Amino acid sequence: MASMHKLQAKEIRLASRPHGEPSEENFAFATAEIPELQPGEVLVRNAFFSVDPYMRGRMNEGKSYVPAFAVGKILDGAAVGQVVQSRDAAFPVSTWVQSLCGWRDYFVAPAQQLRAIDARQAPASAYLGVLGATGLTAWVGLNDIANVKEGETVFISGGAGAVGSVACQLARLRGCRVIASAGSAPKVAFLKNQLKVDHAFNYRESEPLQQLQTSAPEGLHVYFDNTAGPQLEAALYAMRNRGRIVMCGAISGYNTPVPGPRNLALTIVRRLRIEGFIVVDYIHRMPQFLAEMVPALRAGKLLHQETIVNGIEQAPRAFISLLHSGDAHMGKLVVRV
Amino acid sequence: MASMHKLQAKEIRLASRPHGEPSEENFAFATAEIPELQPGEVLVRNAFFSVDPYMRGRMNEGKSYVPAFAVGKILDGAAVGQVVQSRDAAFPVSTWVQSLCGWRDYFVAPAQQLRAIDARQAPASAYLGVLGATGLTAWVGLNDIANVKEGETVFISGGAGAVGSVACQLARLRGCRVIASAGSAPKVAFLKNQLKVDHAFNYRESEPLQQLQTSAPEGLHVYFDNTAGPQLEAALYAMRNRGRIVMCGAISGYNTPVPGPRNLALTIVRRLRIEGFIVVDYIHRMPQFLAEMVPALRAGKLLHQETIVNGIEQAPRAFISLLHSGDAHMGKLVVRV
Repeated sequence: MASMHKLQAKEIRLASRPHGEPSEENFAFATAEIPELQPGEVLVRNAFFSVDPYMRGRMNEGKSYVPAFAVGKILDGAAVGQVVQSRDAAFPVSTWVQSLCGWRDYFVAPAQQLRAIDARQAPASAYLGVLGATGLTAWVGLNDIANVKEGETVFISGGAGAVGSVACQLARLRGCRVIASAGSAPKVAFLKNQLKVDHAFNYRESEPLQQLQTSAPEGLHVYFDNTAGPQLEAALYAMRNRGRIVMCGAISGYNTPVPGPRNLALTIVRRLRIEGFIVVDYIHRMPQFLAEMVPALRAGKLLHQETIVNGIEQAPRAFISLLHSGDAHMGKLVVRV
Repeated sequence: MASMHKLQAKEIRLASRPHGEPSEENFAFATAEIPELQPGEVLVRNAFFSVDPYMRGRMNEGKSYVPAFAVGKILDGAAVGQVVQSRDAAFPVSTWVQSLCGWRDYFVAPAQQLRAIDARQAPASAYLGVLGATGLTAWVGLNDIANVKEGETVFISGGAGAVGSVACQLARLRGCRVIASAGSAPKVAFLKNQLKVDHAFNYRESEPLQQLQTSAPEGLHVYFDNTAGPQLEAALYAMRNRGRIVMCGAISGYNTPVPGPRNLALTIVRRLRIEGFIVVDYIHRMPQFLAEMVPALRAGKLLHQETIVNGIEQAPRAFISLLHSGDAHMGKLVVRV
């Protein structure tokens, strides 16, 4: 134990709150001493941590559904890693665990705050993506919020992103017709060729409403919204009567608020339901989610698409580019520590 | 029968489609010959017909949930009247009936397209208001869409209007705390003194968000939206987690579309549900609705507030002023034929 006393963790902190787009100046690298283990605690070496758009909201002051990050404190997020020291018999050394202790290389925590994962079933990083909160978000949005049914037409904006790429695949597996959008040609190619959606388009280079009207002349049953902004307005125009809109993300407005849709009154005449949700309310659905997802992944019916950035020092830049919807990543974006 | 042949009906037709605010030029008075009764038909003399904001939408070209009015054709809407000639034994002379054959003084229709009403239970005009589609709209919005519960805080915009004034009363009877807005001092006084809401404000002369934050510091469980526009944006800011927004009307945008709320992304972090509905989908709820409403009305627990305009020739002006939210009317606006 004595030698571990000198171990220091590298971590990334919020240096200052961004106004509009974040820049690297808003992040600071620091070291923190790792405390001695107390009974019931484990020391974990993170293998991967997650870089997620929702973290942008936590960089602002003010309350949200998760507390704002504090200036000078760590940017914690989802991570997977292995126990390297243990004072909890249920979490022996080399146990793989999922945590909300990312953006650092090592951490100490009570073992009961961690979730053990089975890294023989799938690569550990998949528990940040298709088998993690990301995949659960797509699954809950389609099942619990939209209640999608076979044969329905589903439009998914941000379809090549972390949540979107899982939603596209789950909707197809459910027997839906899937239309998806993305912000670059490689992402559109990925949607068509890897995710096999029925229609994909680049929302920056074409008119979303026209794309929806030509690819779904009968209208949309479900819109899975990851972007808000102009695509939400286009989707509202394209919804069928009694359509459902899943409000999952609003990345177009994360740096700067965007105007709302001018056609929201269509919710009345078309009897639409618009519903937002937060995946943390649905953690109790995880067992059923994994029971469906793990076999599908192992059978090759689900693609686990991730972009891995190597090295903790790359995390700020990866996060900044994530909010740009550039070509830099497909699917889930993770940092290999 | 021979003398009836010469009877002519006065009716109001759409002369031209308004652009923005309608004017009296958009309406035309005309006469139509009343045909001889066929078996199963009745001749009805309208006593009252309804003047409703939703009719503005039908004046535009294009499809909606009800067909657009045709230029040169009658502006039909809800009406109550009495049978004056009958060739249907189930609808003898002097039967009171509810119809969608308003904006005229006499009409002939198959009796089975009409609904007999009990004018001993309540004044006939109440079947256009608190006991008609107007009241059903408020009742369905609170019950079937919002699922309001005792003790909840409910904000109702356009609270002094036809639907709003019923919604305010039903929410209070349900044991809710009711906040309501209107566009003039007499209407605000009506909300406070007659409808006994817990807090009322003039949305033109105060800041809706500030009004909501001070009168409901714990936030809103339900927002019953009759206006859209800035009040919808304010309500979104003021909603509690898991709040429900009933999209019932959007009068602020009926003449000219208004921008959407800039804060729609709050639906995600606050897990909000926004749902639109059309009362024609809920006609099957009419028996249960009447079973609750008629006793409440007879017991004096519900106020049947209406503004009666005398004379069919006043209908266009009444309709135009309705869209202005002026002081001219409280509650349901009807024309006495």
